[in-house]
Amino acid sequence: MEQALAARLPAADAVPARLHEAMRYSVLGGGKRIRPALVFATGRAVGLHEEQVEAAACAIEMIHVYSLVHDDLPAMDDDDLRRGRPTCHKAFDEATAILVGDALQPLAFELLANDARLPADPAVRLKLVQLLAMASGTFGMVGGQAIDLSVEGRRISIEEVEDLHARKTGALIRVSVMMAAACQPQLPAELTARLLKYSQAIGLAFQIQDDLLDVLGDTATLGKAAGADSMHNKPTHPAMIGIEASQERVKLLHAEALAALEPFGDKADALRLLAEWLLKRNH
Amino acid sequence: MEQALAARLPAADAVPARLHEAMRYSVLGGGKRIRPALVFATGRAVGLHEEQVEAAACAIEMIHVYSLVHDDLPAMDDDDLRRGRPTCHKAFDEATAILVGDALQPLAFELLANDARLPADPAVRLKLVQLLAMASGTFGMVGGQAIDLSVEGRRISIEEVEDLHARKTGALIRVSVMMAAACQPQLPAELTARLLKYSQAIGLAFQIQDDLLDVLGDTATLGKAAGADSMHNKPTHPAMIGIEASQERVKLLHAEALAALEPFGDKADALRLLAEWLLKRNH
Repeated sequence: MEQALAARLPAADAVPARLHEAMRYSVLGGGKRIRPALVFATGRAVGLHEEQVEAAACAIEMIHVYSLVHDDLPAMDDDDLRRGRPTCHKAFDEATAILVGDALQPLAFELLANDARLPADPAVRLKLVQLLAMASGTFGMVGGQAIDLSVEGRRISIEEVEDLHARKTGALIRVSVMMAAACQPQLPAELTARLLKYSQAIGLAFQIQDDLLDVLGDTATLGKAAGADSMHNKPTHPAMIGIEASQERVKLLHAEALAALEPFGDKADALRLLAEWLLKRNH
Repeated sequence: MEQALAARLPAADAVPARLHEAMRYSVLGGGKRIRPALVFATGRAVGLHEEQVEAAACAIEMIHVYSLVHDDLPAMDDDDLRRGRPTCHKAFDEATAILVGDALQPLAFELLANDARLPADPAVRLKLVQLLAMASGTFGMVGGQAIDLSVEGRRISIEEVEDLHARKTGALIRVSVMMAAACQPQLPAELTARLLKYSQAIGLAFQIQDDLLDVLGDTATLGKAAGADSMHNKPTHPAMIGIEASQERVKLLHAEALAALEPFGDKADALRLLAEWLLKRNH
């Protein structure tokens, strides 16, 4: 994945060099690469080779990274550390960090239009553009960000919390699965619907697990300040329904995700492993 | 154009309401709509109806507006006024302004993928995605922004200034013409090349004219602080080659633009009028 991303980012010596350097710093800074892993695992489940979905994985990861870079800005979460290193605006400057995010978005869409390894069919590629655009916009990721800002310190219902999660983190997780599925236009609608169920279940479970780790984890394991969310009084499942009920919810969602994969047989083993890893991880 | 944009923006009462309100405030805030006008005029020159290029015009304008919203941020140009009204981060807040820009980008690409009135051929739509993505990225508009930040107060050559202009303002002006041309896939390559020449000439001339107005205009006519560029010591044609030579350059580029349109006959009259208006305007 590092190689795939590095090859698709502008060279650090091309003008404007500082911006390109900051883009490479931000995208190639490690991270768990959960979304690309979901793309590849789904590709396997629907019978595609890795290279056929590689550009989709890169495009989604670029959108994810841009959202982290903007999220970390002083006017947003004001974070100094990300993945154990200075955040983009700390390592470079605030204006550059804004432009890094602004530049990663069109690069993601350019990949979907131009990348030589994706399926050539323009209808497939256009579908990928549509899916990624909708997952990134106000009814997806950015909308989740906006809701998150608006609820800080305010009492909201568990339904609102789940709408927030479905957009803020869920949209990109779902689209990782659905874009890989869209690269296989022969996939029957019934199996596409199964994959959507899987992605919805692990999307929400992943966020609850994240919030559980935030309460239970310690700073050293996480590489970021533990307890930051409850400190900012953000609405989470552990805070609203308690730790045990949250753990139970994760287990149920995990079972739902596995049930959805049944008709894929052992071709979905990578998706099963990912669900296991995402929901039992400790960082 | 106001109606076309209003119909394609998320409703102000849909969640997240404040973000949608801020998007509508920013996009529907007037402005000269130069890029949409170029899209429609080019559409006419290549024999298309207005509605066939309307979504392309909206997509480009959304990219343009997002760049203004981010440009006005405290970490960038730190402007309080835009089109005679408070800038987005002043009327709302900084986090919202960041998200407005972040949300307008995917909305632009979503339009190109989904809009019912654009030519249905997915190959045409994918070409539009490709053109808009490349014009918006680091080798287009955002790259121009980054170069602009990096040259402030530093001596650069006239070639560097023209590279900056070709990206920062030129890329979206060129792509306004080229996207409309791409909506007509039967257009002979020779005529596409002619339109590219036209768009390159007016793109540069437009920027020089803007810089001339900045020196010669007064605050009341412009609706923004006159002389702001020279104050910030930004490299411009008037500052580097003088006012008269800059005016001469605009005239030559205007003649170039008109010459490029010759084979289109009177179908290109709207493009001719636009060139005239852009290069002889006083605000």
